[in-house]
Amino acid sequence: MKSLDDVLQGIDGALDESVARLFELLRFPSVGTDPAFHGACRDAAAWLKRLLTEMGFTARMDETTGQPVVVAEYAPKGLPSHAPHILFYGHYDVQPPDPLDLWESPPFEPQLRKGADGEERIFARGACDDKGQLMTFLEASRAWLRARGSLPFRLTVLIEGDEEGDASHLDRYVARNRDKLKPDVVLICDTGMWNAKTPAITTRLRGCIAEEVAISGPSKDLHSGYYGGPARNPIRVLTKILGELHDRNGRVRLKGFYDGVDPVPLSTRRQWKSLNFPAKKYLGDVGLAIPAGEKAYAVYEQLWSRPTAEINGIYAGYTGTGSKTVVPAEAMAKLTFRLVGRQTPAQIRKGLRQFVKERLPADCKARFKSHGGDAMAVTVTESSPWVRLAEGALKQEWGRDPVLMADGASIPVVGTFKSLLKVDSLLVGFGLEDDSVHSPNEKYNLKSFHKGIRSWARLIGGLAHQQESMTS
Amino acid sequence: MKSLDDVLQGIDGALDESVARLFELLRFPSVGTDPAFHGACRDAAAWLKRLLTEMGFTARMDETTGQPVVVAEYAPKGLPSHAPHILFYGHYDVQPPDPLDLWESPPFEPQLRKGADGEERIFARGACDDKGQLMTFLEASRAWLRARGSLPFRLTVLIEGDEEGDASHLDRYVARNRDKLKPDVVLICDTGMWNAKTPAITTRLRGCIAEEVAISGPSKDLHSGYYGGPARNPIRVLTKILGELHDRNGRVRLKGFYDGVDPVPLSTRRQWKSLNFPAKKYLGDVGLAIPAGEKAYAVYEQLWSRPTAEINGIYAGYTGTGSKTVVPAEAMAKLTFRLVGRQTPAQIRKGLRQFVKERLPADCKARFKSHGGDAMAVTVTESSPWVRLAEGALKQEWGRDPVLMADGASIPVVGTFKSLLKVDSLLVGFGLEDDSVHSPNEKYNLKSFHKGIRSWARLIGGLAHQQESMTS
Repeated sequence: MKSLDDVLQGIDGALDESVARLFELLRFPSVGTDPAFHGACRDAAAWLKRLLTEMGFTARMDETTGQPVVVAEYAPKGLPSHAPHILFYGHYDVQPPDPLDLWESPPFEPQLRKGADGEERIFARGACDDKGQLMTFLEASRAWLRARGSLPFRLTVLIEGDEEGDASHLDRYVARNRDKLKPDVVLICDTGMWNAKTPAITTRLRGCIAEEVAISGPSKDLHSGYYGGPARNPIRVLTKILGELHDRNGRVRLKGFYDGVDPVPLSTRRQWKSLNFPAKKYLGDVGLAIPAGEKAYAVYEQLWSRPTAEINGIYAGYTGTGSKTVVPAEAMAKLTFRLVGRQTPAQIRKGLRQFVKERLPADCKARFKSHGGDAMAVTVTESSPWVRLAEGALKQEWGRDPVLMADGASIPVVGTFKSLLKVDSLLVGFGLEDDSVHSPNEKYNLKSFHKGIRSWARLIGGLAHQQESMTS
Repeated sequence: MKSLDDVLQGIDGALDESVARLFELLRFPSVGTDPAFHGACRDAAAWLKRLLTEMGFTARMDETTGQPVVVAEYAPKGLPSHAPHILFYGHYDVQPPDPLDLWESPPFEPQLRKGADGEERIFARGACDDKGQLMTFLEASRAWLRARGSLPFRLTVLIEGDEEGDASHLDRYVARNRDKLKPDVVLICDTGMWNAKTPAITTRLRGCIAEEVAISGPSKDLHSGYYGGPARNPIRVLTKILGELHDRNGRVRLKGFYDGVDPVPLSTRRQWKSLNFPAKKYLGDVGLAIPAGEKAYAVYEQLWSRPTAEINGIYAGYTGTGSKTVVPAEAMAKLTFRLVGRQTPAQIRKGLRQFVKERLPADCKARFKSHGGDAMAVTVTESSPWVRLAEGALKQEWGRDPVLMADGASIPVVGTFKSLLKVDSLLVGFGLEDDSVHSPNEKYNLKSFHKGIRSWARLIGGLAHQQESMTS
């Protein structure tokens, strides 16, 4: 195996240029959810297309039902047939920068500032999520190409503009372009490190489904003086049903809810335990003190490996100033469920509907509404060769074993790739907890950017090494 | 006792004039809650002042913190010292007439229309509530004065303009004029008959208190992916607490809630039972079928003699289109309680606060807010001489024993008179269930108006007779 030093030296020597390119991308106010910025989205996409073309890729902008996607294809001549096809995914759209007055520097005028701790940080909307992160991979590819001439795999780069908005645009695009996109693995750089010194690979994401339930009773709003007592109050019915959703131990009481919730392998549990998850600080930071999930599980397990039923919104009757003596005709609640293991959206929906109907007085009605965006949980086999490859690269770069981390949230695109392309995603990212993603003063540490690029270069090196072994 | 025939003949002979006067009053669009109609309120008050002056009373308009009140005083010379001081209360303000397009004739252009059933009805906003009703007493007084020259009691007429709005204006006025107003009894004509053929005296009104409770947990809204499970969700806390507010039998579980809920006397229960309350129709009319109050009680008891805890409004988290994976920082509900017997607002508040606090996780907070308008229940002693007097008068006029009726709603002014003037109110009215009070096409049957006037004349006759007995 050839030494990686030439590539890494190239990265170190050209870091200023890499930062300059990132700054160019950060200057586009590409807020995908705001029509006022759709021109900027298109400009960002065009800039990326140009960048990828200059790197030697065959790049294009494809229209979708939302913002355009940038697609770049790369297939070096003489690539052995066993070389993998990698799909790299990222997004150029960013969260709205509001509230603007809380920013210390304008969100779309990137700045590199050194903190009192000596750490250099890039401040801008999208510095981390996802412009800074996606550029780590592109800069690593560029450095590799410059030093070696060609990448040791077939590559498709897919960068979308609706990640912060409506996921269905990309879903439709992927469904239409299934055959062209189909890779051996998807690489995504949109997650975080365990802490500033410890890299991480995210191998578990919870799934999610959203349901709305409305209970109706009387045919119209009633006066609680003339009807209070004998008349069924839908708010009482709804709160009683929702109040029974969890048992005393925090378990969800829907029938069949835990079907497919597989136990976490002992090795993973051991690894998680060794992380010493700072439960007290985690809750204390948001004003809480008592873990509210299933009693039999630690906080990190409640978050990473246990399903939930949450009420995200509730509304009924009179909610203005003062009081109104009304017994309303209807009461509504919005729920989401986080899924793990092999739990299916259909199973959860069925359980919820049955649970509500069983508790519904005979003269009330229940209406249910699904809000789409269903995502099953994602579990990447920890023994997968891609995980092994990433572990090796990250350990070399950071000098520490990477943490195989779970994330309680969902990244629907991972589910999209899984269900439409039948392929796993490898989630490696360099974000830190204090990056203020989605908040004012978003930043990305220069170290995350620099060592992120180097990490990807090492991963590419690992792949090259594999191929050398197989062809030699 | 002189025969009443002269007075009653006078009423019958001058009915057209009485209707004409009511029409004049109905033409004022005196919507007290709408500043656009405050001029009309003042005009209605001025008209009433003129009417009462013409009747020989000393009338004035007094300013309040809201709409002006009309006060008329009458004290005939030579009245024996044991003659009572009667306060007659009514209100000239009306509900807004919206939605206007549902009216068959303009709300402030009264019409007398004969229905297919031969019944003549007066259509206008306020035809029943309360212009038509209050005029029955004034027309009876007028007829009596015309036939006999003087009334057998001292009389204060108090007609306000904020009954449909903010009760605190009248409360302040009564508090300031306590000594001048203090009567032996208050007469109010603002309630209904049992049915079109059976008169009623309302002897029970439920009280009411309004409380708001807000549960806060996390210091800010959280993402249910990053926190769902371990983080306390205030909507879950609130729905669980509210879901426990009633036991399986519909009883309210607040500590001490039933203190002071006296059993209804056997005689009243017998009378209520004999009324054959149409429970099925009462619930069926609003799309319901199963009585939702305390299981041990009949529907009419749940409504008239049992206290309630109702949730009138609830709000938390995301309630817009689609879904949002939020664990909100706070959840809020508005409750009202209907009180009976000797239940006090303080007792209910204390019970609620304790109930919530006992169930509150240690890392959550509860905020409580009282919305004022506290009203204790009102029970007029059924053996009171005033009830006896009204029973006699109503039986003579309608040929049937009047029903001693309860009303599940509250009339706060009755509580005001009770607490500030230490005096009971006698509630006699001639409204019918189909009068569409507060709705389009409000009406008052001509028969209600005519026989209502005659009923009051008979009651005045009863008082005259009492005095003759005492002085002879």
